[in-house]
Amino acid sequence: MPQARLCSCWGGRVLPLLLAYICYLLLGATVFQLLEKQAEAQSRDQFQFEKLRFLENYTCLDQRALEQFVQVIMEAWVKGVNPKGNSTNPSNWDFGSSFFFAGTVVTTIGYGNLAPSTEAGQVFCVFYALVGIPLNVVFLNHLGAGLHAHLAALERWEEQPRRSQLLQILGLALFLTLGTLVILIFPPMVFSHVEGWSFGEGFYFAFITLSTIGFGDYVVGTDPSKHYISVYRSLAAIWILLGLAWLALVLPLGPLLLHRCSQLWLLS
Amino acid sequence: MPQARLCSCWGGRVLPLLLAYICYLLLGATVFQLLEKQAEAQSRDQFQFEKLRFLENYTCLDQRALEQFVQVIMEAWVKGVNPKGNSTNPSNWDFGSSFFFAGTVVTTIGYGNLAPSTEAGQVFCVFYALVGIPLNVVFLNHLGAGLHAHLAALERWEEQPRRSQLLQILGLALFLTLGTLVILIFPPMVFSHVEGWSFGEGFYFAFITLSTIGFGDYVVGTDPSKHYISVYRSLAAIWILLGLAWLALVLPLGPLLLHRCSQLWLLS
Ligand SMILES: [K+]
Ligand SMILES: [K+]
Repeated sequence: MPQARLCSCWGGRVLPLLLAYICYLLLGATVFQLLEKQAEAQSRDQFQFEKLRFLENYTCLDQRALEQFVQVIMEAWVKGVNPKGNSTNPSNWDFGSSFFFAGTVVTTIGYGNLAPSTEAGQVFCVFYALVGIPLNVVFLNHLGAGLHAHLAALERWEEQPRRSQLLQILGLALFLTLGTLVILIFPPMVFSHVEGWSFGEGFYFAFITLSTIGFGDYVVGTDPSKHYISVYRSLAAIWILLGLAWLALVLPLGPLLLHRCSQLWLLS
Repeated sequence: MPQARLCSCWGGRVLPLLLAYICYLLLGATVFQLLEKQAEAQSRDQFQFEKLRFLENYTCLDQRALEQFVQVIMEAWVKGVNPKGNSTNPSNWDFGSSFFFAGTVVTTIGYGNLAPSTEAGQVFCVFYALVGIPLNVVFLNHLGAGLHAHLAALERWEEQPRRSQLLQILGLALFLTLGTLVILIFPPMVFSHVEGWSFGEGFYFAFITLSTIGFGDYVVGTDPSKHYISVYRSLAAIWILLGLAWLALVLPLGPLLLHRCSQLWLLS
C-alpha cells in the first residue's frame, strides 16, 4: 500500500522534526508565560483600579452603565473606529491607508488594525489574497533568484587571483552593509522618531513587520493625536516592500558567502 | 561592472513583475476603499451617537471625563487586558494561551490579540521567532516534499495499465477530498458553532489564519463571556499546525495532478 511506504519513509525524517517542533512550542509557551503573566496581572489590577476610581468620581454612574459603555467602545474598535479620536479624524480607509492595507494582505503581514468589516469586503479580501499572495511570493523569489544567479554566474571564481577574490568579497560585504543600513536600520530609527517610540520599540516593530508576523501592537501612522504627512503610510508600505525584497535578496546569500569565506580562509 | 550586468539581466523579468505588483496593490486600494469607507463612516457616526446618548443619560459626566475613560480602556486593551471582562477572567497568558501564542509566532500568523508587552518579552519574542520561523518552514517543507517524492517515485506510472492509473488517481482524489473535508471544512464549522459566528465568518477566519495573514479580527477562544473547555485553544493551535501541514502537502500536488489528468485525457 502507498500509505505504508509513505509512513515508513516519513518516520525517519518527519517524526524527529515534529518532536523538535512541539518541544520548541512548549518551551516558548513556558517562557512567554513566565515573562508576561505578571505584567498582565499588574495591567489588569491597574485597569480595575482606574475603573473603580472613575465610578467613585462620577457617582451618577453604576457598574452596569460603565460595562455598557465599555461594550460600546469595544464594538467601535472591532469595527475599525478608533474611539480615542473625534469625528474629524481622517478616514482609516482613505487611499493611502487602503494601499497600506492591500500591502499588508499580499505580504501576509496582516496587522489587523484595519480589517474588512463588511461581508463584501471580507469576500473580496479572500479572493484578493488568493491572487496577491502568490504574486508577492513570485515577485520576491525573482528578486532573490536574480542576484543569486548573478553571483553564481561568476563561475570561474576559484581560478581568479586572490586579490580579485578578496576585492569581490569586500565589495559584496560593502553592498550588503550599506543596503542593510539604508533599508533595515535607518527607517526604523525614523519611525521611532516620528511615532515617539524608543529605538528598541522601533526595531521590534521592524522585526515583527519584516518577519511578516505583524501583531499590530505597533503600527506606523495610526496615532490619531499625530499629524502625519499625507504620504506617510504609503511611504511605510514602500519601505515594507523594499525591506522584504532586501531580505529576499540577502537571506539566500548567507550560505554562499559563508562558503566563499571559508574557501578564502582555507587557502590563506 | 557587476551592477550594470545586474540591472540589464533584471530589467527583463523583474520590472514587469514590479509593475504588475504595484498595479495590483493600487487596484486593491481602490476596491477596499470603495467597499469599506461607507461602512466605516456609519460605524463612526453610530459610535458618536452612542457617546452623545451616554453623555445625556449620565449628566455628571462631561466630554473630558468620557475621553479620559476611553483612554484608560484603550490603554488596557493595548496591554492585552480585555476591558469587557471582570478580574476573575482566566489569564490571557496561561499555558494553553501561551502555547497558542507561540504557535502564532513561529507560523508568522501573529493575530496580535496577544502580544508581549514587557521589554523582556519582546526581546525573547524576536529571538524565539528567529529560530522558530525557519524551524516551521523546514518542518512544513519536509512534510510537503515527503508526499511529493513518494508520488514522483511511482515512476513507471506511464507504463502501468490504464485501469491501475485510473484507480491511483481516484485514490489520490479521495485522499485529498477526505483530508480537505476533515482538516479544512469541518473545523471551521465547529469554530463557527462554538464562537457563534456565521459559517461565512468561520471560513473567513480559517482562510485568514491558514494564509498566515492573521488580522486578529476573528480569533477562536477569546470571548470572555464564553466558557471554553480548557484545551480549546491548544486544540485550535493543533488545528492550525495540521491545516498548514495539509496545505504544504496539497499545494505542491496541484501541478502534478493536473499533469497526470491531462495525460489520461489525451490517451483516452
Ligand atoms: K501575519
Ligand atoms: K498578523
